[in-house]
Amino acid sequence: MMIGIDLGGTNTKIGLVRPGGEVASKANCATPLVGGAEAVIEVIARTVEELLLGMDGSRRAVVGAGIGAPGPLSLDKGIIHQAVNLPGWTNVAIRDLLSDRLGVPVLLENDGNAAAYGEFWAGAGKDGKDMVMLTLGTGVGAGVIINGQLLHGHFENAAEVGHMIVERDGLPCPCGQRGCLERYVGAAAVARRVEQAIRDGALSVLEERLHDGYRIDGKAVVEAAKQGDQLCLDVWREACEYLAIACVNLQHLFNPARIVLGGGLAQAGSFLIDPVIEATRRRGWSPCMSGSGFDDAPEIQQAQLGYQAGMIGAAGCAWARFGERHA
Amino acid sequence: MMIGIDLGGTNTKIGLVRPGGEVASKANCATPLVGGAEAVIEVIARTVEELLLGMDGSRRAVVGAGIGAPGPLSLDKGIIHQAVNLPGWTNVAIRDLLSDRLGVPVLLENDGNAAAYGEFWAGAGKDGKDMVMLTLGTGVGAGVIINGQLLHGHFENAAEVGHMIVERDGLPCPCGQRGCLERYVGAAAVARRVEQAIRDGALSVLEERLHDGYRIDGKAVVEAAKQGDQLCLDVWREACEYLAIACVNLQHLFNPARIVLGGGLAQAGSFLIDPVIEATRRRGWSPCMSGSGFDDAPEIQQAQLGYQAGMIGAAGCAWARFGERHA
Repeated sequence: MMIGIDLGGTNTKIGLVRPGGEVASKANCATPLVGGAEAVIEVIARTVEELLLGMDGSRRAVVGAGIGAPGPLSLDKGIIHQAVNLPGWTNVAIRDLLSDRLGVPVLLENDGNAAAYGEFWAGAGKDGKDMVMLTLGTGVGAGVIINGQLLHGHFENAAEVGHMIVERDGLPCPCGQRGCLERYVGAAAVARRVEQAIRDGALSVLEERLHDGYRIDGKAVVEAAKQGDQLCLDVWREACEYLAIACVNLQHLFNPARIVLGGGLAQAGSFLIDPVIEATRRRGWSPCMSGSGFDDAPEIQQAQLGYQAGMIGAAGCAWARFGERHA
Repeated sequence: MMIGIDLGGTNTKIGLVRPGGEVASKANCATPLVGGAEAVIEVIARTVEELLLGMDGSRRAVVGAGIGAPGPLSLDKGIIHQAVNLPGWTNVAIRDLLSDRLGVPVLLENDGNAAAYGEFWAGAGKDGKDMVMLTLGTGVGAGVIINGQLLHGHFENAAEVGHMIVERDGLPCPCGQRGCLERYVGAAAVARRVEQAIRDGALSVLEERLHDGYRIDGKAVVEAAKQGDQLCLDVWREACEYLAIACVNLQHLFNPARIVLGGGLAQAGSFLIDPVIEATRRRGWSPCMSGSGFDDAPEIQQAQLGYQAGMIGAAGCAWARFGERHA
């Protein structure tokens, strides 16, 4: 059994994952926001014990653990340099701390990479070797698989697709750039754009919710757009356009067999996938290829593992690293 | 000895390259534009014979050949699907035709990839494992090296950085897209923008040249900008801004140790590199990393091999493929 952990700013998902990707047991815990890394590690360790107890498993059955975490990270050193949604976490040696507490070897992976590896290993990318995954959560995470391996890059911070600039001098991003993809297609960005438009006087069925003091979230925007709310439809369509530009760029740069869209917003299904594919075809190349029959457009597909992708993928990365040692 | 060939729309560069990257002998031939692939192959074969004669070399000393060609290509099948600057070339099995004529194994590589591999193997990227190269020629070629290997992608058409969309709904590109990087930073694009501005009434020292019936080229724009011509300076600065956006995106996607700028426009040296580095810093991220000491900005450097990069790189790819067989 391999422990898979998806460390998030709100929740941490923990599972026991078999060599083939099957989840034997899992739990979803609130991430403690006080007590720093120690408190989080304690929650993880106790949850693993409960999961093992619940399935009459022994600690000896556990080969190791993989943890997906927000970055920037040093994968090789096992350090979280900073995590925007985990206040006070600066240069935390999460891998070694967790390994000491769990008594097994631990692998640290970027959360976007872990989710991508999960889909590659046990989900939408199972039958291929090259794919890119975008996780449309609050922000936009991503991971790139080349020839069966996660791309890490020289600084171990590759595949930050959410911070690809898609609009020159566009909306400011907390990362310090302008026009990042994440500012246009993440759930938070989509929701904030609708809120701002309502405050600026645009009509929407979500107006009442905002005036009642509630924040609008990505899911509400999708629901309202599906019901024909013009403002939400406009914001959604624009998000799909930017996502299509991102897909065209990913096609030209990585030339993957498929691009997998996951995360909360991707649960919109064909309401997301269809307009993205349409816009990708409209915005992508082709006339110069006429007559040659050459076509390098990737399949654009919905993810299959839902919220478990990161947890399963973290375990999958750990299986790839520690599995042989065990066998 | 390995034969290195850089097949271009105007000239074809042919060289005999030693295992360490040293060019033993070389020639630059006009690419025949009539007679199709057969005429080109004939010129290549004759030139190789002349080069061998000139250095008292025997055909037996030739291990194989690498040819870099414009795409799209099928590398695995050795086919040029289409080449915009080689009229009538559709689905040409260049590798096998050339191999039959030369009597040695031949490797086909994309021209941008070949130039990148040349710089990686014997130029600016010699001491690293991960780099991206942009060749700022008439258009924008590129190649990506990950862990010492060229990135090809599932469809063997990766690293088409020139067709990364950097301006939503921007200038139309012959490829069918809008806002491609190549439309803003290639030598042809820069020259056409200056020409158009002059026709629209802008003042420039290059006005007379245009009115005399000559086309303006990228080199002339660089020279005029260096001498303070306001129009050329504006166009050049804008090209540098778009190039910086491309560099920021390449940083986030591939996370290379270095980005190497080559091709004709890169001969502008610090007049190109300095403003690109400045704009990359200004447009790139950093505030979110404060306190952690994390920095993943690649070095941005000028290429070292000049116009020989593609030829040397084609030979380098062939050495990597056929060298062991020979040893």
